[in-house]
Amino acid sequence: MADKITSREADYSQWYIDLVRSAKLADYSDVRGCMVIRPNGYAVWEKMQAALDRMFKETGHVNAYFPLFIPESFIAKEAEHIEGFAPECAVVTHGGGEELAEKLYVRPTSETIIWSSYKKWIQSYRDLPLLINQWANVVRWEMRTRLFLRTTEFLWQEGHTAHATPEESQEEVMRMIRVYKTFAEEYMAMPVIMGRKTDSEKFAGADETYCIEAMMQDGKALQAGTSHNLGQNFAKAFDCQFQTKEGVLDYVWATSWGVSTRLIGALIMAHSDDRGLVLPPKLATRQVVIIPILRGDKAAVLAKAESMAAELKENGIPAFVDDSEQNSPGWKFAEYELQGIPVRIEVGPRDIDKGVCIAARRDTLEKTELQLDATLAVQVSGMLSAMQADMFQKALRFREENTREVTDYETFKSAVEEGFVIAHWDGTAETEEKIKEETRATIRVLPEESDYREHYHMDEPGVCIFSGKPSSQKVVFAKAY
Amino acid sequence: MADKITSREADYSQWYIDLVRSAKLADYSDVRGCMVIRPNGYAVWEKMQAALDRMFKETGHVNAYFPLFIPESFIAKEAEHIEGFAPECAVVTHGGGEELAEKLYVRPTSETIIWSSYKKWIQSYRDLPLLINQWANVVRWEMRTRLFLRTTEFLWQEGHTAHATPEESQEEVMRMIRVYKTFAEEYMAMPVIMGRKTDSEKFAGADETYCIEAMMQDGKALQAGTSHNLGQNFAKAFDCQFQTKEGVLDYVWATSWGVSTRLIGALIMAHSDDRGLVLPPKLATRQVVIIPILRGDKAAVLAKAESMAAELKENGIPAFVDDSEQNSPGWKFAEYELQGIPVRIEVGPRDIDKGVCIAARRDTLEKTELQLDATLAVQVSGMLSAMQADMFQKALRFREENTREVTDYETFKSAVEEGFVIAHWDGTAETEEKIKEETRATIRVLPEESDYREHYHMDEPGVCIFSGKPSSQKVVFAKAY
Repeated sequence: MADKITSREADYSQWYIDLVRSAKLADYSDVRGCMVIRPNGYAVWEKMQAALDRMFKETGHVNAYFPLFIPESFIAKEAEHIEGFAPECAVVTHGGGEELAEKLYVRPTSETIIWSSYKKWIQSYRDLPLLINQWANVVRWEMRTRLFLRTTEFLWQEGHTAHATPEESQEEVMRMIRVYKTFAEEYMAMPVIMGRKTDSEKFAGADETYCIEAMMQDGKALQAGTSHNLGQNFAKAFDCQFQTKEGVLDYVWATSWGVSTRLIGALIMAHSDDRGLVLPPKLATRQVVIIPILRGDKAAVLAKAESMAAELKENGIPAFVDDSEQNSPGWKFAEYELQGIPVRIEVGPRDIDKGVCIAARRDTLEKTELQLDATLAVQVSGMLSAMQADMFQKALRFREENTREVTDYETFKSAVEEGFVIAHWDGTAETEEKIKEETRATIRVLPEESDYREHYHMDEPGVCIFSGKPSSQKVVFAKAY
Repeated sequence: MADKITSREADYSQWYIDLVRSAKLADYSDVRGCMVIRPNGYAVWEKMQAALDRMFKETGHVNAYFPLFIPESFIAKEAEHIEGFAPECAVVTHGGGEELAEKLYVRPTSETIIWSSYKKWIQSYRDLPLLINQWANVVRWEMRTRLFLRTTEFLWQEGHTAHATPEESQEEVMRMIRVYKTFAEEYMAMPVIMGRKTDSEKFAGADETYCIEAMMQDGKALQAGTSHNLGQNFAKAFDCQFQTKEGVLDYVWATSWGVSTRLIGALIMAHSDDRGLVLPPKLATRQVVIIPILRGDKAAVLAKAESMAAELKENGIPAFVDDSEQNSPGWKFAEYELQGIPVRIEVGPRDIDKGVCIAARRDTLEKTELQLDATLAVQVSGMLSAMQADMFQKALRFREENTREVTDYETFKSAVEEGFVIAHWDGTAETEEKIKEETRATIRVLPEESDYREHYHMDEPGVCIFSGKPSSQKVVFAKAY
């Protein structure tokens, strides 16, 4: 079973690493900075992929696959892009036993290689929009790594779209950041703030970057997804022009957007506890474990457990029985709490006599008596739905309790150690940089949602927390992963 | 629409490339030897992945993800393995702006990186079997490339399993090659011969390689999947020992097995024709296109087409309407034949008056009148099932017609230019090599299936086609992709 997991209170960072490794979600590999995503962790990624892929297709996107390698000259075509990415690339210099004439970068992101194809595919407005997504691995050389959150190689999806007008591309940017918000909140049960990044935090090569930001249990922020308005930057870099409806030539308008296996780290940090993983039911491959208490008429108990599992599965609830006799029920309880199975059901001979079983929810650890009758699947389904909804509400409450509106810099400095801080900013990169230097807090997001803006009075004018200069709006500061 | 596709008769190789590019399945990229899998091609891969992934899970496997990079010293640990793979690897020498202390190979296959993890995960027989699959990209430097069939980077799945006994690992090897055979025949409608490879054709590092071999329309063979019995080779290379039930230490027994995007090339070469792609319905994302003939009461025709599509979709048949007025019905017929939509339905005002529509099957181009009544979905479903079955039978007949049993070397030399040749072989690598040098034909497979062996009298003793020495069995020779 599990090695002991450090408590969150004792050492939050160590708790995270202990949990990831004990629950067999991921492990460091023998390759510097690269992780192995173990089957338990990969199963979560598969559930995420399935939900996201469906949402991408419902919004008109198709999947494709572009090369892993990018010629050095391609990366260099977009000035900000190469400045942002070149220093963190892995570089292939030899292939097939020979030194290459041109170095190949292992993709850190695929704008350049994709736009070199789009240039060939797009001639006229009739070829637009082009709405393509790719599921792939990418590599960014990292000095300090942390499983799922920051590794040299990670898995992600990257959408790359091409449009005839800036209005359409901006619509796409917003559509996709909203898809991410819906996914984060409805599947991951993780509330997120949707909004814009400041210029200094945006993607290298973008005109504008939108993001969703979540709060972890230590009060830090985690950027959970981004959607970029690339303007005509990459079309110009790759000379990708099209004939408009009006018959003139124009450069194509572009977006890109992505989420990665980082989301698994976010999921863990948002919900899990000192016993192990807490998984929202919608992302659990196995939602219910049934543990038979093998006393008295063992065969009858086991048969009951199996028939319960069969009934749940017939009703679309993935359930399984752990009937191993080498481990005690107590050991199993701990093991499945560690693994984050959303609902545990125990059933013994006395329960069967009474026509009941005991179900425990992983998030609250609350036990409920369920009736062993034809409504079993309905009862369990109700527990799972309630758990999904309650996890979101709990995380939302936590975020609200750990968000402070602050007006003086001294309070600001202590407040950013605890959670999100809403404060006035004078809009300059200098102030942003100085605050970062002094506190390590950054501007996470300029929220776009009116209910959030109103709740925190973000549109009331005031003075900058740092410079004292006039400020037209408040922004969200936090320390971040 | 499509550029003209060269006919198979005129130039089979050019036909293939023309088809792949005209149907927008894939394209060469600006990176040497690497392809772009375009949305139409990737959709086929997604259908293949879904079916295979389900079959892997039904046989007890789970997915995981291991690093892209393999330290040079790992590849070197298994002697045959490094000899086979090192010359065709892409090598990363720089990362994060600095030269690396140890070179990293971009994985050509993952046995070594995976066994370096398995060593940590396996201590006792209780940890076995370990049944893991990975969906990933791999890189093998290729001098002469061909879209899907041979490219520097390709996508695949690689299963890597660990077992306590050689019997169990051999069972796994056979289970998975049979899964591949089932997939090839039931989904791809492509008959395959299942059997063993000779020593010279087996995987670098395997004790034994099993394969499925298919015949393309030019009579050449294509290896469509392999399953390797790795013995204890990788366990020994990585010092991966476990405590047996009996309490002694032993090395773990291993298998690996894989199929790749090469299957898309096989699918095209097995079934397609001079008009374009012919897709078996089970691998078609869009199974039915409805083309309204927009004459007379256009709105009524369009409404009928839409209601037909809705009815088909409700019954699980993915159908869509092409109602664009800028292209003629004739243009659309050609376009969807090129794209390989299995069934095309045309419906016009006169059809509606008569209560019928005209459906055409892509494989035979045969037209059938369907009744526009409540049984429409049943009628279409019947067409799709018949098409799936007929495509398999046609390919099987083709293989049988192009397989010859040959007893003299002169006939052999001309026969291998046409198709598969069943002939006696003395069992030596020397003979195998000389035949390859003289004819470019190789021993594709030592069939394992008794019906195939009996049909071609493979177990009757005789004399080697080349050396005249005694031979205990016949084998299958062919030129191959």
